[in-house]
Amino acid sequence: MREAYHDQLGQLAGQLADMCAMAGEAMEHATRALLGADLALAEQVIGDDTKIDDLRSGIEEQAYALLALQAPVATDLRIVLAVIHAAESVERMGDLALHVAKAARRRHPNHVLAETVEPYFAEMGRIAVELAREATDIIRTQDVARARSLEDADDAMDDLHRHLFTVIMDKEWAHGVPSAVDTTLLGRFYERFADHAVSVAKRTVFVVTGRMPGYGGSTDEA
Amino acid sequence: MREAYHDQLGQLAGQLADMCAMAGEAMEHATRALLGADLALAEQVIGDDTKIDDLRSGIEEQAYALLALQAPVATDLRIVLAVIHAAESVERMGDLALHVAKAARRRHPNHVLAETVEPYFAEMGRIAVELAREATDIIRTQDVARARSLEDADDAMDDLHRHLFTVIMDKEWAHGVPSAVDTTLLGRFYERFADHAVSVAKRTVFVVTGRMPGYGGSTDEA
Repeated sequence: MREAYHDQLGQLAGQLADMCAMAGEAMEHATRALLGADLALAEQVIGDDTKIDDLRSGIEEQAYALLALQAPVATDLRIVLAVIHAAESVERMGDLALHVAKAARRRHPNHVLAETVEPYFAEMGRIAVELAREATDIIRTQDVARARSLEDADDAMDDLHRHLFTVIMDKEWAHGVPSAVDTTLLGRFYERFADHAVSVAKRTVFVVTGRMPGYGGSTDEA
Repeated sequence: MREAYHDQLGQLAGQLADMCAMAGEAMEHATRALLGADLALAEQVIGDDTKIDDLRSGIEEQAYALLALQAPVATDLRIVLAVIHAAESVERMGDLALHVAKAARRRHPNHVLAETVEPYFAEMGRIAVELAREATDIIRTQDVARARSLEDADDAMDDLHRHLFTVIMDKEWAHGVPSAVDTTLLGRFYERFADHAVSVAKRTVFVVTGRMPGYGGSTDEA
């Protein structure tokens, strides 16, 4: 019985990793759709989002069943709770990729972004996908040291995001208000995606160490 | 022992309700600071945000302790998990109020918003605060019927948010790009605040009925 239970726990973490990989792929495709005004790719991301949502429902259901039937304690309990939290964050990552794809679809056949800001989004997209990939690997490997290095990538994202705003807000901005509005929202989607990826990784650190890094209170187990 | 445990569970829900009330108050003050260019009030919201974060840490810590020590099942388990989830959403609500207050501080002594859009924000602020209040009451009363009525207020928020975009995107927009960017982000903060309030209420419905309303998969307890 206990062995079957540990199998279930491993399966749950594996599904979370798969889900995180899917969210990363969604953002990769959404970014390509955005930069290339690729309608087919945008539609694909939009259509596939329910798969991520379904995975999340499945993970949560299994996690609740595990808690109810097995009443895990200590590290096992932490893993189940971390998985529930992380699945919520990964679903949001999928939603944010969906928002990017929808922006590409809304403006098609036009490009959403002015050429001036496209390089920012190419780079923010690259970092977002890298963060999702790192978070996926960290769930699989439980490598705490790597989770900490994610913060650097997240800082790079924040810098890009801040710099993007100075470009939009500059008097030289010649692309009009609608383009500024789209660019503002898209920038925020990438930044939030990165935040969620880091939060997923932090939850994994919590499982391993019992402490949330950069988190107000102690969350030691009683 | 079991009685002490039910006291703890009730306390936990009570703290969550207090936290939700604080987030609502933060948004009320932030909106007043935004519309009145009130620096002192903005600073107060900014300073008080850590109180909400601390409450969240405390709630999560107690919830984890309850799970580890008491291994609750059935409805009790659902309550603890719903509280953990909801506390995360309410912390985000506090963060969003904080973002609004920071925008008011950043542009002070100027007003952030053009006069044309101020009525939208007055109304979005009113709905946001109402939603937080309703969610607070629902946590306290466990009144499922009320939770469903929240959806209407959330729809009203979405309508306002959509209409706001048509105003910003209109050719007649005479307030420049920086103001459009601020308005875009602020609109999104209110809309997300409402989404989180609804999500908190839905979690409460889940506790009472065992089913998440408007949620993909079944989350019946195994």
